[in-house]
Amino acid sequence: MPELPPVETAERMDRLRARFEHEGCDAMVVTDLVNVRYLTGFTGSNATLLVTADAAALVTDGRYRTQSAEQLEASGVEASIAIANDPGPELAAAARGITRIGLEADDVSWAAQRRWSIDTFSWAHLVPTEGVVLRLRSVKDAGEVARLEAACGIADAALADVSQRIHDGLTEQQDAMADHGSDGPSFETIVASGPNGAKPHARPSDRVIGSSGGGEFVVVDFGATVDGYHSDMTRTLPVGTLSDTQERMYDVVRRSQAAGVERVAAGVTCKAVDDTCRDVIDDAGWAEAFAHGTGHGIGLVIHESPRLSSVSADVLEAGHCVTVEPGVYLPEHGGVRIEDSVVVTDDGCRLLTGSPYA
Amino acid sequence: MPELPPVETAERMDRLRARFEHEGCDAMVVTDLVNVRYLTGFTGSNATLLVTADAAALVTDGRYRTQSAEQLEASGVEASIAIANDPGPELAAAARGITRIGLEADDVSWAAQRRWSIDTFSWAHLVPTEGVVLRLRSVKDAGEVARLEAACGIADAALADVSQRIHDGLTEQQDAMADHGSDGPSFETIVASGPNGAKPHARPSDRVIGSSGGGEFVVVDFGATVDGYHSDMTRTLPVGTLSDTQERMYDVVRRSQAAGVERVAAGVTCKAVDDTCRDVIDDAGWAEAFAHGTGHGIGLVIHESPRLSSVSADVLEAGHCVTVEPGVYLPEHGGVRIEDSVVVTDDGCRLLTGSPYA
Repeated sequence: MPELPPVETAERMDRLRARFEHEGCDAMVVTDLVNVRYLTGFTGSNATLLVTADAAALVTDGRYRTQSAEQLEASGVEASIAIANDPGPELAAAARGITRIGLEADDVSWAAQRRWSIDTFSWAHLVPTEGVVLRLRSVKDAGEVARLEAACGIADAALADVSQRIHDGLTEQQDAMADHGSDGPSFETIVASGPNGAKPHARPSDRVIGSSGGGEFVVVDFGATVDGYHSDMTRTLPVGTLSDTQERMYDVVRRSQAAGVERVAAGVTCKAVDDTCRDVIDDAGWAEAFAHGTGHGIGLVIHESPRLSSVSADVLEAGHCVTVEPGVYLPEHGGVRIEDSVVVTDDGCRLLTGSPYA
Repeated sequence: MPELPPVETAERMDRLRARFEHEGCDAMVVTDLVNVRYLTGFTGSNATLLVTADAAALVTDGRYRTQSAEQLEASGVEASIAIANDPGPELAAAARGITRIGLEADDVSWAAQRRWSIDTFSWAHLVPTEGVVLRLRSVKDAGEVARLEAACGIADAALADVSQRIHDGLTEQQDAMADHGSDGPSFETIVASGPNGAKPHARPSDRVIGSSGGGEFVVVDFGATVDGYHSDMTRTLPVGTLSDTQERMYDVVRRSQAAGVERVAAGVTCKAVDDTCRDVIDDAGWAEAFAHGTGHGIGLVIHESPRLSSVSADVLEAGHCVTVEPGVYLPEHGGVRIEDSVVVTDDGCRLLTGSPYA
């Protein structure tokens, strides 16, 4: 794998501080571990980060004494590190005198909020915030795009292998992707054939591919991870001789997906992309058979901001990395879904996934 | 694998209802997905369950329409199923007129609690509860014990293979367990040799086992999963000729672990088991080198209630399935940990793991 450009971790905490006024707080406690990683480079499984206007304190436990110091230094992040099983006293000390403390309300449990309100930050007003760091994360820097692109490349290589092996007589599980240099699978691989393909989130079973006797679809939905960045791609592989309806399903989804990718550009609403994909499928009479959203952001988690759906209020920005993945699912005929990952540019988008479509 | 006896899913909701009075609520919203699975058999990734005195409503999204119906029927669970992206309106309808609604405060986010308080259950008092279903889960029925035992058996078989392959010249990663009929690994396998073994949560590296030149320990900590039930076992394998200190470390941990298993019985406090293990190690002068708790419950998650530690207030009950896993970690000599999974009985316990110790 070629050397990847660095990610700009050290600049992110100031981007968060710039949001404090809008959020109505003077400091923020970050509990979502992905957000802690994004802001500091620390990847341990236990961390709480307090960010104030001019300082930051990371609290983790004794397992991560060395790792936390190493990762913060490698990221060039300025933060004190405290080792404690209960972060409360360290957070209280670091936040003393601050009266409006933001919490990640969509991450912190109600139980933790109650404890912190009563004990830890008893003098302060706790401010519920939602999605603040997630929104920072949605626009990727060059290092992040490079990692997503590398993960997509691994998935492309894996699919080339898998495609060779998808033929009658293999079971879905035997076809599950082998590791191709990924840190680990991006999410649980979906290989779903025939009737199983009509379930958008089927898991590999011991069904023998092609066992219906007729033609069928094999939906392969999978990804790789590089430095924590997740790729996401779906291809639908035909096995045997497809029926006329199946041929039409594939054609409609292919056109829907191509139209969606074509529509992506900075300034376009996510709903507009969803509408574009959905219109093609609606016109074919299969509106009911496309029962999920068109796509989602990818990054340090496999589903993140923005969402491409009929109810999304998001607007695409340059640097957003998103999927476009319409599908049609008919129990009698199977399922077809086609998905690419793209990075949004000012005048369109660039495909990060590059596998052929069938 | 032999046929496993059924798990008694259908009886569990009434056990939860029997806790309502103690918890000060007349209904409970279950958001923890493991708890939803425990109460209904549904394994989807999106679910909210409302349990009232005489009914239950499961809300999930369109991906799980078929699966939820199939799994609830297979479990013999009586609950209505509603398909919705936002569970709020369905939950509100199912809870109408109920004034004290318990939430899982350690699972539900502050944001969800705020939304539900203001919008969904605006007429009701929301009651913060903690660990209610977790405590129900801690006592296993015969079907659950059988699944844990099957998972332990798979791990035993895998260890027999691995032991053959642990010799000078293999790296830790090459020794990582292959799949032996498990649904998947119970948790990330730990194989740690020599100095790495002195880190209780080391991950497999490319260190060559036996490369210190002298004798060393290989700590192998791993598990399998059957029907969602997780086994957990550690063995420490000696490689090369151990030093006198290493021989003594192994002997002390072996005696500590055996004493702990011997102490386990219904009615005994978890702290007493921890004390028993710790006393043997303290007597050897290595109190500081055993810096973690003695064990934990196993089940649908790998670490669950009860906890065996010096600060635990739990008392063992028949049907608890727990680990006993003392260790001694000395950077210059390596690490030794020995762990078995056991099911607690009225007069002692039964080992679920059966691998030889060295």
